Amino acid sequence: MAATSAFTSSQALFVRAVSCRRYAAEPARSDCLSTPNYAGLHSSWGLRLTPIDAPLDARNPRRLGRIRAAVVETVEGKPATEELFEKSVNTVRFLAVDAVEKANSGHPGLPMGCAPLGHILFDEIMRYNPKNPYWFNRDRFVLSAGHGCMLHYSLLHLAGYDSVKEDDLKAFRQWQSRTPGHPENFETPGIEVTTGPLGQGIANAVGLALVEKHLAARFNKPDIQIVDHYTYVILGDGCQMEGVSNEACSLAGHWGLGKLIAFYDDNHISIDGDTEIAFTEDVNVRFEALGWHTIWVKNGNTGYDEIRAAIKEAKAVKDKPTLIKITTTIGYGSPNKANTHSVHGSALGAKEVDATRKNLGWPHEPFHVPEDVKSHWSRHVPDGAALELDWNAKFSQYERKYGDDAAELKDIISGDLPARWDKSLPKYTPESPADATRNLSQQCLNALAKVLPGLLGGSADLASSNMTLLKMYGNFQKSTPEERNVRFGVREHGMGAICNGIAHHSPGLIPYCATFFVFTDYMRAAIRMAALSQAGVIFVMTHDSIGLGEDGPTHQPIEHLMSFRMMPNILMLRPADGNETAGAYKVAVLNRKRPSILAFSRQKLPQLAGTSMEGVEKGGYIISDNSSGNKPDLILIGTGSELEIAEKAASELRKDGKAVRVVSLVSWELFEEQPAEYKESVLPKSVTQRISIEAGSTFGWEKYIGSKGKAIGINRFGASAPAGKIYKEFGLTAEKIIDAAKAL
Amino acid sequence: MAATSAFTSSQALFVRAVSCRRYAAEPARSDCLSTPNYAGLHSSWGLRLTPIDAPLDARNPRRLGRIRAAVVETVEGKPATEELFEKSVNTVRFLAVDAVEKANSGHPGLPMGCAPLGHILFDEIMRYNPKNPYWFNRDRFVLSAGHGCMLHYSLLHLAGYDSVKEDDLKAFRQWQSRTPGHPENFETPGIEVTTGPLGQGIANAVGLALVEKHLAARFNKPDIQIVDHYTYVILGDGCQMEGVSNEACSLAGHWGLGKLIAFYDDNHISIDGDTEIAFTEDVNVRFEALGWHTIWVKNGNTGYDEIRAAIKEAKAVKDKPTLIKITTTIGYGSPNKANTHSVHGSALGAKEVDATRKNLGWPHEPFHVPEDVKSHWSRHVPDGAALELDWNAKFSQYERKYGDDAAELKDIISGDLPARWDKSLPKYTPESPADATRNLSQQCLNALAKVLPGLLGGSADLASSNMTLLKMYGNFQKSTPEERNVRFGVREHGMGAICNGIAHHSPGLIPYCATFFVFTDYMRAAIRMAALSQAGVIFVMTHDSIGLGEDGPTHQPIEHLMSFRMMPNILMLRPADGNETAGAYKVAVLNRKRPSILAFSRQKLPQLAGTSMEGVEKGGYIISDNSSGNKPDLILIGTGSELEIAEKAASELRKDGKAVRVVSLVSWELFEEQPAEYKESVLPKSVTQRISIEAGSTFGWEKYIGSKGKAIGINRFGASAPAGKIYKEFGLTAEKIIDAAKAL
Repeated sequence: MAATSAFTSSQALFVRAVSCRRYAAEPARSDCLSTPNYAGLHSSWGLRLTPIDAPLDARNPRRLGRIRAAVVETVEGKPATEELFEKSVNTVRFLAVDAVEKANSGHPGLPMGCAPLGHILFDEIMRYNPKNPYWFNRDRFVLSAGHGCMLHYSLLHLAGYDSVKEDDLKAFRQWQSRTPGHPENFETPGIEVTTGPLGQGIANAVGLALVEKHLAARFNKPDIQIVDHYTYVILGDGCQMEGVSNEACSLAGHWGLGKLIAFYDDNHISIDGDTEIAFTEDVNVRFEALGWHTIWVKNGNTGYDEIRAAIKEAKAVKDKPTLIKITTTIGYGSPNKANTHSVHGSALGAKEVDATRKNLGWPHEPFHVPEDVKSHWSRHVPDGAALELDWNAKFSQYERKYGDDAAELKDIISGDLPARWDKSLPKYTPESPADATRNLSQQCLNALAKVLPGLLGGSADLASSNMTLLKMYGNFQKSTPEERNVRFGVREHGMGAICNGIAHHSPGLIPYCATFFVFTDYMRAAIRMAALSQAGVIFVMTHDSIGLGEDGPTHQPIEHLMSFRMMPNILMLRPADGNETAGAYKVAVLNRKRPSILAFSRQKLPQLAGTSMEGVEKGGYIISDNSSGNKPDLILIGTGSELEIAEKAASELRKDGKAVRVVSLVSWELFEEQPAEYKESVLPKSVTQRISIEAGSTFGWEKYIGSKGKAIGINRFGASAPAGKIYKEFGLTAEKIIDAAKAL
Repeated sequence: MAATSAFTSSQALFVRAVSCRRYAAEPARSDCLSTPNYAGLHSSWGLRLTPIDAPLDARNPRRLGRIRAAVVETVEGKPATEELFEKSVNTVRFLAVDAVEKANSGHPGLPMGCAPLGHILFDEIMRYNPKNPYWFNRDRFVLSAGHGCMLHYSLLHLAGYDSVKEDDLKAFRQWQSRTPGHPENFETPGIEVTTGPLGQGIANAVGLALVEKHLAARFNKPDIQIVDHYTYVILGDGCQMEGVSNEACSLAGHWGLGKLIAFYDDNHISIDGDTEIAFTEDVNVRFEALGWHTIWVKNGNTGYDEIRAAIKEAKAVKDKPTLIKITTTIGYGSPNKANTHSVHGSALGAKEVDATRKNLGWPHEPFHVPEDVKSHWSRHVPDGAALELDWNAKFSQYERKYGDDAAELKDIISGDLPARWDKSLPKYTPESPADATRNLSQQCLNALAKVLPGLLGGSADLASSNMTLLKMYGNFQKSTPEERNVRFGVREHGMGAICNGIAHHSPGLIPYCATFFVFTDYMRAAIRMAALSQAGVIFVMTHDSIGLGEDGPTHQPIEHLMSFRMMPNILMLRPADGNETAGAYKVAVLNRKRPSILAFSRQKLPQLAGTSMEGVEKGGYIISDNSSGNKPDLILIGTGSELEIAEKAASELRKDGKAVRVVSLVSWELFEEQPAEYKESVLPKSVTQRISIEAGSTFGWEKYIGSKGKAIGINRFGASAPAGKIYKEFGLTAEKIIDAAKAL
């Protein structure tokens, strides 16, 4: 692409005005125009533009020039002087050192070692708009080594993000600050995902990059590249050791996510000391085996041009993600603590801070940002605004030419749900055929996929068991990224973390992922991160009890339902039939900042008479009752596949003249959110004769059955046998309910 | 080692008598002596003996010869005819096919594809004693791809294990059978570990091989190799995709576990179809990066000599574990279903079984074992007995020469705890200095390490935070395998699964492993496997609440205590101070078939007056009380770091004349196991004014506080701030208890 031909002299001048402040001496803008050391367009590195700008040559030359300049800089720029660069890098270092020191808590080592890399990324490479951290087409940055968050906060601060002012830096790790101890997307605009638990961030980044590749394939046109950004991630030794990162990176390689660029901060130090004691594998060779392009920057401390060249090389590789191993010194600059684990997770201490100041020639008071550094970084606010404005203009053009696509993309960007989307969900009557809820789940997924442009997902190699295939779509693969069935392989943890990344890319994306319910144990860390970081992922969990039968106790969940009911900010739903399955999906889709776990049966279940979507939305409701005046003799409470058993027992007991109410408690969390009167109307306090039945742990049922009730459940591991046999042997039968009712 | 020189002609004759039946035509023993196709010692493969036998040349030449023969066969043997071999391999195949067919449930594909490999392992390579599956020095075999368990059951059956008789095969996947749907060590002697959840088995195998290397280094002498066995494992594509396997295998490479030989069943099929859709990495290159030796057997279906040569090569590599990728056809022999996912996890169906019988020339009825095959396998019972007898004799010699070592090793083998071991645990008084329970935990670990020869373990790169280093020992490393501090790196899941393997090696091994409590989410699958498979691992979990402070919500457990209290067969203990910490360790050590999770504080806690080891053993007990007649006005129940707060509140309330009891509920599970009278004496039913305080989810506390009580806890995610601030903001204070008491 002969991009230079697109520049006029007036554009070039504007380019200069924007870009010449990079590492030039103060004062900035006025002198800048005549500064001789401008090294933008005529860099010896040559000029290459990213595709995003190419089609717009004729439309808005002035803005285009401006954008081009930014792009040119980001990809090709080289500092005029290293002096300001190093000063600016040291600013990053000392903001981190000072904040950790003030908090007397935190991790200074990574920010000090990775400051040059972070600086190059945020100042030269990445495209973003500080005043709108949510601009859709921004480059994404993930600090997978989240403990080093002061690096990220410092860079956001310098770049002009409103979320990280000087006072925020000074409140690092303090109550209700916007600079918590690890990066939290829900606290700090500019943070894409929540990291800290190691390995999650790189897997999130795979999800972000997946989305870019998917949306680009779906929405870009030969003349308009409306989706086009990179995903950058820094991960450390700890992330590399975690299995979840290998899972996600194996998929990234398989999918050929060429715009994912990961920096492996190879500093040889982890908390326990030198990585030699536990981590001696050849990481780059492993990544080559995973299908990645790999580079090794041997001097990550001062080899600035090495870093820049590596990024340039990474961008040139379009069909593979790139791992840039960058060897750094943890705590770089600290004369006595650098390259030791003592600088990893503790404040340096006043004495060593002084020594470091001397060592790096930093005479400033804590939290000081020198004027020339400030001035240098100040261009990112106007540049970022221009990037977004330009993209907006491009989107208007896109909208004019490709209205339908634009409308769909808008929904994905905004998170607005199409009107009457929920009407697509199937409805059932008692005459509808009995079916496993996993099959009914697939009916719902396929119905939703027709109306929700952001619905995509898949299973951890159990698509045909979890029943998660979207029939109208093919597989998301390297060569068919526009498709929506994602094949995660047997990688539950990576799957969950990737889906968190997908959800955090744009509000309208609704990722779902599936495995056997018991294997939530493999991905629990990712599920908790979904809950904490407010990622509205739908976790489709089939084979939700001993009802799966012969596979036995390794595959039979027991404590899992309860263990999620107590997790904050997540919905645990266990529907009993078709209408409840549809209701569960409605709830899950509506809860975009609260993930949902949907537990489905392997075994066939009847369509019950009293179930409804509306009931599910309330979490708990009456499905049958022969009492009057809200005074039943007995309340049977069931969920999922056991609701049918409660109904059977109720029928029998009613024959004996008992007034029996059956309650479906499909989601405890939703029920608790109902007004007190509603709860009283379902579970009146005066009725203490209550029996619960659920094929899982009885732990916690005291809440609803009280001290006089009886919980029928399972407080041991399961067994390998046909499902009916286990139900009988474990006493999950209508007869047992009737016996219990008589005993009460 | 010039091993041939050790053989006399009489020994050679005996060797022949034992070994000649391998694949020779019937009748066996009588004709055997004159059969011309004997191919034992003078095999063109040459002769190499394993070190175990070398030192015993002079002691028992007759038995030695016999053992030697077995060893020679296992390493060097080659079948005389392939006809019987193939017949025998088909026996394995059809036992699997028939059992799955009868159950109409199960996974025939792997057994059919891996039958040749399994056959070679169990018939030619491995040293074991079918009549004593627990013989200490046996080779260990793990089927990490546990769904293929009919392979293992079939081989155990042929080899003569009493646990898998014909009737057991016929009861595959039925209620209370010894042949459950996935391998369960606690149901079936001969099964080393429980597998099925993918990736666990290979990590268990790393633990088994770690133990062998460790014990060999500790106990072997220049003249007596008393510990000397291999660990073999078969894993499939699914295991390879799971992150836990990469974690464990990275460590295996790092540790140089030369006697770990893993077979990767490369059959290109997983449940969702061809692995091309999700798994295209180069596995062998990845393993080379992890420090493994790798081999590829391209014809795993009929390349029997290729398989044998690969094992020979693997054994020759002493300083690295070996991965043998063995390309097989899933469902080999099934004319219409082989090489498809339909043969992975379903019965073939009567028609296809018939077609397979025809295709493989198998005219027999279901479950038939031909006489010549039976006869061929029959030698494993006497050979195995001889192996053990010989080892016993060697052990007697070892005992005479190295009495102290022998006594220690005996404890490890038997699981007997040394007399008065628990007296080593430290005792504390209220005057003992306040300390974090994580530090007190380290005191206990170091005290126990002096008296428990089988105690070993470590942390997932948090040794200096979890306080888990044994000060009198160095690091278990490739060149110092005799040491007991295991450095797991940031690999929680692999760590847990490796420890499960360690525990299952021998009853006297007591592995412990540590990380931050919140990161049990990363290793929950392994913890559940410990509980299910009855592995007495001690999980040392520090930083057990918001009390960790600034690291924030990503690091602060909330729902974790409760989520483990409801898991079957595991003890969740949360000690409050030194005596409770010691008590928790006593309980953990005594529970060898039930794992324990010990939750410890990061923050300093006082030594309380009323705590005791004996109290901990009961799970819940009174630590202070000013009431009489078992009729307090109020009961405060606390655990761990909040017990101090309950004590403070009680002091204040007592000043107002209230009769207040404070109960430490350190382990709910243990408390529930106490007699009803004891429970009534601690928590009398008549006292309904109860307040609980615990820095975690209140979900489940209804069980102990009843419907009239008040639970003080945390039902949201944590926050990043100094610990004291969070406690105050979250209302975990004595004042809040007092307010609640007044409100009751």
